[in-house]
Amino acid sequence: MKKIGFSSVRITGGFWKTKQELIRKTTLYSVYHRFQDTHRFDALKCDWKEKGEYNGHIFWDSDVAKWLESAAYALEFERDAELEKIVDDTVALILKNRDENGYFNSYYLTVDQDQRFTIRDNHELYCAGHLMEAAVAYYHATGKDAFLKAMCRYADYIEKVFMIEKSAAFLTPGHPEIELALVRLYEATGEKRYLALSKYFIDTHGTAQEKLYADTRRHLYNMDEMPIRERSTAEGHSVRALYLMSGAADIAHACQDQELMDACKRVYDNIVNHRMYITGGVGSTYIGEAFTVDYDLPTRTAYAETCAAIALAYYCVRMQKIHESAIYADTLERVIYNGILSGLSMDGKSFFYENPLEIDPAFNDVDKSAVKKSRYPITQRLEVFNCSCCPPNVTRFFLSLGDYLYACNEDTVFVNQYMASEMKVEGLSVTQQTNYPVDGEIRITCEGEKKEIALRIPAWCKKFTVNHPYRMQDGYAWIALQGKTEIILSLDMPVLAMAANPKAHALAGKIAIMRGPVVYCAEGVDNGEDLSSIRLSPDAEFTLGDCEFLLPNLHASALRQKKADGLYAVAGDDYEEIFLKLIPYYAFANRGETEMITWINRK
Amino acid sequence: MKKIGFSSVRITGGFWKTKQELIRKTTLYSVYHRFQDTHRFDALKCDWKEKGEYNGHIFWDSDVAKWLESAAYALEFERDAELEKIVDDTVALILKNRDENGYFNSYYLTVDQDQRFTIRDNHELYCAGHLMEAAVAYYHATGKDAFLKAMCRYADYIEKVFMIEKSAAFLTPGHPEIELALVRLYEATGEKRYLALSKYFIDTHGTAQEKLYADTRRHLYNMDEMPIRERSTAEGHSVRALYLMSGAADIAHACQDQELMDACKRVYDNIVNHRMYITGGVGSTYIGEAFTVDYDLPTRTAYAETCAAIALAYYCVRMQKIHESAIYADTLERVIYNGILSGLSMDGKSFFYENPLEIDPAFNDVDKSAVKKSRYPITQRLEVFNCSCCPPNVTRFFLSLGDYLYACNEDTVFVNQYMASEMKVEGLSVTQQTNYPVDGEIRITCEGEKKEIALRIPAWCKKFTVNHPYRMQDGYAWIALQGKTEIILSLDMPVLAMAANPKAHALAGKIAIMRGPVVYCAEGVDNGEDLSSIRLSPDAEFTLGDCEFLLPNLHASALRQKKADGLYAVAGDDYEEIFLKLIPYYAFANRGETEMITWINRK
Repeated sequence: MKKIGFSSVRITGGFWKTKQELIRKTTLYSVYHRFQDTHRFDALKCDWKEKGEYNGHIFWDSDVAKWLESAAYALEFERDAELEKIVDDTVALILKNRDENGYFNSYYLTVDQDQRFTIRDNHELYCAGHLMEAAVAYYHATGKDAFLKAMCRYADYIEKVFMIEKSAAFLTPGHPEIELALVRLYEATGEKRYLALSKYFIDTHGTAQEKLYADTRRHLYNMDEMPIRERSTAEGHSVRALYLMSGAADIAHACQDQELMDACKRVYDNIVNHRMYITGGVGSTYIGEAFTVDYDLPTRTAYAETCAAIALAYYCVRMQKIHESAIYADTLERVIYNGILSGLSMDGKSFFYENPLEIDPAFNDVDKSAVKKSRYPITQRLEVFNCSCCPPNVTRFFLSLGDYLYACNEDTVFVNQYMASEMKVEGLSVTQQTNYPVDGEIRITCEGEKKEIALRIPAWCKKFTVNHPYRMQDGYAWIALQGKTEIILSLDMPVLAMAANPKAHALAGKIAIMRGPVVYCAEGVDNGEDLSSIRLSPDAEFTLGDCEFLLPNLHASALRQKKADGLYAVAGDDYEEIFLKLIPYYAFANRGETEMITWINRK
Repeated sequence: MKKIGFSSVRITGGFWKTKQELIRKTTLYSVYHRFQDTHRFDALKCDWKEKGEYNGHIFWDSDVAKWLESAAYALEFERDAELEKIVDDTVALILKNRDENGYFNSYYLTVDQDQRFTIRDNHELYCAGHLMEAAVAYYHATGKDAFLKAMCRYADYIEKVFMIEKSAAFLTPGHPEIELALVRLYEATGEKRYLALSKYFIDTHGTAQEKLYADTRRHLYNMDEMPIRERSTAEGHSVRALYLMSGAADIAHACQDQELMDACKRVYDNIVNHRMYITGGVGSTYIGEAFTVDYDLPTRTAYAETCAAIALAYYCVRMQKIHESAIYADTLERVIYNGILSGLSMDGKSFFYENPLEIDPAFNDVDKSAVKKSRYPITQRLEVFNCSCCPPNVTRFFLSLGDYLYACNEDTVFVNQYMASEMKVEGLSVTQQTNYPVDGEIRITCEGEKKEIALRIPAWCKKFTVNHPYRMQDGYAWIALQGKTEIILSLDMPVLAMAANPKAHALAGKIAIMRGPVVYCAEGVDNGEDLSSIRLSPDAEFTLGDCEFLLPNLHASALRQKKADGLYAVAGDDYEEIFLKLIPYYAFANRGETEMITWINRK
C-alpha cells in the first residue's frame, strides 16, 4: 500500500478542519512563543555559556526542528512571508554555525565541544534526524534547498563517522529517530547511501557487536537487549521503541526484507493486543517512560505520553505499507481521536505530556507525609514543559494529518480515514463529504484510473450499508470503479460499552464507553465527586448531547453509591440512580482541575 | 473500665487455645532460633566490632526485649526451667554490661560510645521501653526482680538526662514506646516519678519547645507537627503514631486529663472512620510506613504492618479504660482476627511484615524494564526479617491475649471478647464455653460480687438472643447478676457483604465478605488466575465449607469474565458462572505464591 502524502490531500470541513485551523493559527504560534521565551531559538546562535542567561540543552535542537517541520507544513497550506522569514532566519543560524563537516548540534558546538558522539543517550543523532525531517518538509513546502543540502552534508558526515570509520563511542543512537529521517532524506533526494545508513543502524541495533561497546547502554530501556529481527515484544522507553520500530518498518519495506517485516508485525501485534490503552496510549509506567509487561494497564498512573501515541501512529502508517490490512488504520484512528488529541487543550494552547485514563486530585497528595512522593501525572495542561517534545510533535502530526487518509496500490485506492477532504494525484481524485465522526454518513466521489476503491470498515463498526456491490477483504469493502463513482457509505455508530481482557487486572469489572472511534470519559465538574462510586450498565441507553467539545456528549442513567458516614457498612440498598454525562476523552481537563475516569465500574 | 489482666484469665479451648499453643510451643522458639542465628542475643555481649562477625543494630535490643517479654508470658502459662534459663542468661548479660548509671544499649555501649542520646531517630528510648516492659513481665511471671530493679535504675537515669538536666540532644523519643512502658513500670512499682516522666514526654511531644531542637525531626513522619492535645488525625509512621497515642491514652487515664482524653478520642475516630483497612490494618503507604489521607486505602500496595495492627490493639484497650464503650472492643476484635493474625503463617513459623489486601504476583515485576522498581509487599511469608520487629510483637501480643477479654468497673464485669475461657479475680469468676467464631453460641457463667454483667454485642451482629432480660447501652447488653448466673448468648452470624464508603475510591464498586469478625479473601490456588475478573453479588448465598484453616471456608456462586483473545471487546455475554471459594483472610499465602483479593468486584 503506497502512501498518498498530505500535499495531495486537503481537509475541507468538519471536525478535522476545525482542529487543523486551530493548530495552524494558534498552536503553532503558541509553541513558537513559548520556545522563544525559553530561548530555544536563541540557543542555535551557539554563543551561550554553560551558566549564561540561558542554557541550551542536549535535545533543544529537536524541539526547534519539530517546530520548523510544523511551520513547513503550515507553509504548504498557505505561503506566509512572516512565517517563512522565521524559518529562513532559523535555518540561517544553523547553516552559519555548523562546522566544516556539516555537523550541527547547538549543545556540542557550544559546550562539551570535545565530547561529540561520545555519549549514546545524549540525543545527538535524534536531533540530527529531526533537523533532516524539517529540511525535507521545508524543501517540499517552499522549494528552497539550502537546508536540505546542509542536512545531506550532515548525513554524509554521520555516514563517515558511524558506518565508514566507526569512530564514534557508540554504534547506534540511544534515542532512535535518525533511522526514519534518513529514509525520508533518501526519498527526497534519491541518495541510496542514506537508506543504507539507516539500514545499518537498524541492523546493528541490539546486536552482540553493539554490546561490546562499554557505553551507557541501558538494555531494556533502549530496547536493545536483542537484535530487532529477533523481537516479539515492545520494551523500554515507549517513544524510543516506536521510533525504532518505525525506522525498522521503513527499512523492511524499502528493502523488502521479509525477516524484518515479520519482526515488525510481531511487535505491532504485541502492542495492540497486550500493551495498549483503549485510547491508543502506550507506556504503562513513568519509570523509564516505558512499556512494562502484557496486560499491565493501570489507569491513574498511565504514562501514555503524547509523543508515544504519535510514534504509534508513525508505526501504523509504515506497517500498512508492508501489510495491506485495515488493522493499522483502525489503530491509527483510535490513537488520532484519543491518545494524541488528548495531548492538546481545546483552546490549542496547552498540552499534556502524559495522558492518564484517570485523574483523582484528592489523592494526588497521599504521600504528603513521606520523604519522597509517589508519582502521578499532572492534572492540568501546561503551555510548555522543560522536556517539551510533545507540543511540536502535536503540531507537526496534525498539520500533516492528510498523510493518513488515502493510499493506493497498482489497482486500488484505499480510503483509510474518513474526513471531509479532497485528494488529487495524477490520474486520480477522491472527495469525501461527511460530518464523521459526528455521524457515520460518508459520501465519496472517486474518479480516475484505479480499478477498485477499498473503504475501510472500522473494526468498531458492526453494521454498515453501502450503495454499491462490494466484497470484504482485510477489513476493507472493495468496490469496483466505473468512471466517476459516487458512493454512499453509512457506518452504524452506536454507543458501545467496551470490556478489557480479563488479564488486564486494573480494568477488570469496568467498562469504557466508545462511540465510533471516540473514547469517552466522565469528569467531576459534570458528575460530582467520587466518580469511582458510579456504576454503569453495559446495556445503558445513551442519548447524544450537545457538541460542547465538537463531538456530542453522551448521557445515560447510571447508579452512584449514596453518601455514607462510616467507613464500612453492609452492602445493600446503597446506590441511587443518577444522570451520567460523558464527554470525549480528548476533551478532559479543559475546565480546571477535576476528577476524571475513563473506565467505569460495571453494573 | 478497669482492665482484668491475662494472668487472671485462662483461654481453655477453641480457636484461640489452638493458636496460643502453636505460638507458645512453636512460634516462640522459631523466633528465638532465628534471633540466635542472626546474633541478636550475642549482640548483648557488647564485645563486637563494627565490622565483626556480626554487627549489632540500633534497635536489636528491642527485638530481644520483645522476645523476653513473650518468654515471660509463656512462663506465666507454665514454668519451664530451660526457657527460664535462657531469659536469666540474657538478663545477666544486660545487667553485666550496663554502665554505672544503669544505661543499657548494646549498640551505643559498643560502637558510637560518645553518641548516646544524640540522634532522636535512633531508637534508644524505644529499646529502653521494651526492656522495661520485658522486665515487668518477667517479674510478674517469676517474682525475680533483678531485671525490674535494673530497669528502674535505667528509668531513673533517663529521668535525670531528659527531664531534670535536659542534657540529651533531643527532648522526646523519635520512636515512641517508652511512654507506655513507663506507665507499666509505674503500675508495677508504684513509683510516681515514672508516670511523671511519661507525662513529660507526652506533654512535650510536638511542642514549639521541642521544635527549637535542631535534630533529625521529620515532622509528620514522627507525628510531631503539633502537640498531642491539639491533634485530630493520625499521621506519619503508623507504629510510632499508635505507640505514641497509646502512651497518651495511658496518661490521659492515669491523670484523668480530659483535654488529652478528647484528643485521644478524636484521633481514634479519625483512624477507624477514615484510615483503617477492613482488616484493622493501618498505614496506607510504604513510604514512611505511614498514614496518608482520609479514605486512601489502596489494596495491593497497602502497608498495614503487623506491628501497626498490634499497636492499634494497644490503643483500643487503653481507650476503653477512659471511655466505657464497646466500640474499642469491636475494633480490637477486627484487628485480632484479621490484621494481626494474618502476620503469622498457619504453621507458626513465618511472618508478614506488611499485610496487603491484594497480591498479584504476575504484576509484581511490571517495572522490570526500569532503573528503579515500584514497591509491592512481598508475596510469601519469611521466618525472619532484617527489621524483625513484627515476629516478637506477634508472640508477645498473642501470649497476653487474655488481657483483652474481660474488664470491670465498680458494679459491672464486662465481657469484651468471646473465647472459651476462665477468669478469676478476687470475688469474681466468669467462664465462657463457646466455639466462637465457628458459631455464635456462647455460654457464660458468672459468679461474684458485681451487680451486672455487660456483654459486648459486636457491631457486625444485627440479631442476637440472650436468656435473660437486658438493656442495651454503649454497645453492651447489661444483665443483672443474681448469685451464680448462667447466660446463653446467641449471636446471629450470617455471611455479610461489606461495602466501603464511596470516598474510598480504591474500594469503590467492590465488596468484602465477612462472617462475624472474620474477613475473607479469595486465593488463586483455589479459584484460578485473574481474580479481579470475578464479580460477586452482595446477595450471594454462601455455604460454610470445611475448617481448612480452623474456621469454615465459604462457598458461593459468582461470575467470572470469560477468557478472551483481544485486548478490548464489546461488553456483553462475557461472564460465566463459577463456584467461588473464600478462606479467612488471616490464612492467605500459606500455600505458595498465588493471587489474593479481599475486595471483590460487585455484581
